[in-house]
Amino acid sequence: MRHGYVLGIDAGGSKTHALIADLEGRVVGWGQSGPGNWEGVGLDGAAAAYAQAVDAALEVAGISRDALIAAGYALAGLDWESDHDRLTPVVTRLGVPGPFILVNDAFGALRAGSADGCGVVVIVGTGSTVAGRNRRGDTFRTFGLGMVWGDFHGATGLVWEATRAIGHAWIGRGPATALTDAFVQAYGAAGLLDLVERVSRGAAPHPDGRLAPLIFATADAGDEVACRIVRQAGEDLGQTAAAVVRKLGLGAEPFDLVLAGGVFRSRNTLLIETLASQVRLESPAVRVVLLEAPPVAGSVLLAFDAAGLPTPPALRERLLAEAHHRFDMLQRGIPQ
Amino acid sequence: MRHGYVLGIDAGGSKTHALIADLEGRVVGWGQSGPGNWEGVGLDGAAAAYAQAVDAALEVAGISRDALIAAGYALAGLDWESDHDRLTPVVTRLGVPGPFILVNDAFGALRAGSADGCGVVVIVGTGSTVAGRNRRGDTFRTFGLGMVWGDFHGATGLVWEATRAIGHAWIGRGPATALTDAFVQAYGAAGLLDLVERVSRGAAPHPDGRLAPLIFATADAGDEVACRIVRQAGEDLGQTAAAVVRKLGLGAEPFDLVLAGGVFRSRNTLLIETLASQVRLESPAVRVVLLEAPPVAGSVLLAFDAAGLPTPPALRERLLAEAHHRFDMLQRGIPQ
Repeated sequence: MRHGYVLGIDAGGSKTHALIADLEGRVVGWGQSGPGNWEGVGLDGAAAAYAQAVDAALEVAGISRDALIAAGYALAGLDWESDHDRLTPVVTRLGVPGPFILVNDAFGALRAGSADGCGVVVIVGTGSTVAGRNRRGDTFRTFGLGMVWGDFHGATGLVWEATRAIGHAWIGRGPATALTDAFVQAYGAAGLLDLVERVSRGAAPHPDGRLAPLIFATADAGDEVACRIVRQAGEDLGQTAAAVVRKLGLGAEPFDLVLAGGVFRSRNTLLIETLASQVRLESPAVRVVLLEAPPVAGSVLLAFDAAGLPTPPALRERLLAEAHHRFDMLQRGIPQ
Repeated sequence: MRHGYVLGIDAGGSKTHALIADLEGRVVGWGQSGPGNWEGVGLDGAAAAYAQAVDAALEVAGISRDALIAAGYALAGLDWESDHDRLTPVVTRLGVPGPFILVNDAFGALRAGSADGCGVVVIVGTGSTVAGRNRRGDTFRTFGLGMVWGDFHGATGLVWEATRAIGHAWIGRGPATALTDAFVQAYGAAGLLDLVERVSRGAAPHPDGRLAPLIFATADAGDEVACRIVRQAGEDLGQTAAAVVRKLGLGAEPFDLVLAGGVFRSRNTLLIETLASQVRLESPAVRVVLLEAPPVAGSVLLAFDAAGLPTPPALRERLLAEAHHRFDMLQRGIPQ
């Protein structure tokens, strides 16, 4: 049996995670640093963020770099063919021995959430991205570049639909909605006109994705307009996922539909059910998986893949559970 | 009979127009200066832009300020109650004698395009605004603050719908569309991926409202997706206009539906007919007017109103035609 450890990195626009596991999937080290998307912080900034997270994880694990035998890198900003040449030297300079796999961060989340590494992942945070991989290894990914190129209904898009509905209610074009009061209260404003005046004059911040939970709460309380917005988001995201299913010919057998990203932490049934039902139209046997673990666990699984090591279900489940626990504590600032 | 001249100012985000007419509606002076929306250039900047345009118009007219007897000011950035107190001193400092009327610029366009000053105006440029006035003098205006608060389907929104449709075609979620090639060619790109990579990496500008004419051209050439986008814009704008009709109780008698702003310069029949048909559902006898004259002609008509002088049809028509001619030449840089 082989000895050593594997490393995973998940680098995003707001933070970078590193995770080290032994070859049975036990988590032994973890680390976190700042933004790791080179598009935002430059190649040197990304390299520094990766290195800082790796060093922290090595320190927690109490092992040297030489004990690592493989790595999986799931990096935001790895979007185009040309980015492979750009980012390969950056990860190579980390000095991690052994083979590695380098993918866009969406595929780390897919690897974490899907039992066999295949299927479709719908990531909904501030923005949204849908990515998939079939059993032949073909992959496909939507642009994930914000609302412009078709990836609508991240938190930003949801909030925009809400402000649009609030505007339509105000002009008497759409039905009155409890979203109006919810937004007015969230701003501590005297009323809608006060809210809009303050926003338009820069005295209050523009409504952004942080208000998305308000929409779910208002929908849960029974507001028809909020329900319509949530349902519409589910249909839109589900239709994109169904298109990716078709692109990859995934529909014939059951596959995992992984839901990842901050917006699903609401666990909103209406959103999830509407989304899933769109995909079921394409593929009735789809299994819906809500990803609880941090996507960096998927990067560790990719490191196993790189090393040619199997990841049986017990190993994967242990890894996901331990990673979830560790990063949950890290997120909440609890000393470990 | 009274003697003297009246002054109109139309101040917008990109330029300020001034127009002087005699009491029979003959245009005698015209002037143009830079941005006049105080939200962008500050109160002093706006004051300077107004003054520069007025001075230019007085010089062309060859008259002194004392020959003016009334003024109409239609000002972008006059959005809230508090703005009246803010902008009244600014226009007062221009030193124009006599009474004046101060309104949001949307009402200048309405006064220009509507035979009796009542009705609804749909202004579609980069963004969109809908405003109305009934025969009792009640007014209503949508926020006109960009896409967020319900005013969708300005040129920016149209282009966004196009890029969204292009993205959906690429992932196989929506039908193929000639918009893809049209946008690729407009960017001189090698293909869609090249276009998106360049935009996402800052090597090419983000698609913006300047591409809206491409959508109309693609629709006119028979592309179904482009037609759907144009139809949807017409429905959306028409539904907002119908809501304003209801707000003001305008539907009982015929009224003018004035279409103003750069997007209507396309004279796209599909857009205009779809928009009008939504308003006709509310009010079958509506008269659709495409505003050819610059909105500053409406400011001059407001000056007549301020002076208590009638504006019979012949006077109004002469004023609109002459103003159109003068500002058309000014726009094209032709010495007059």
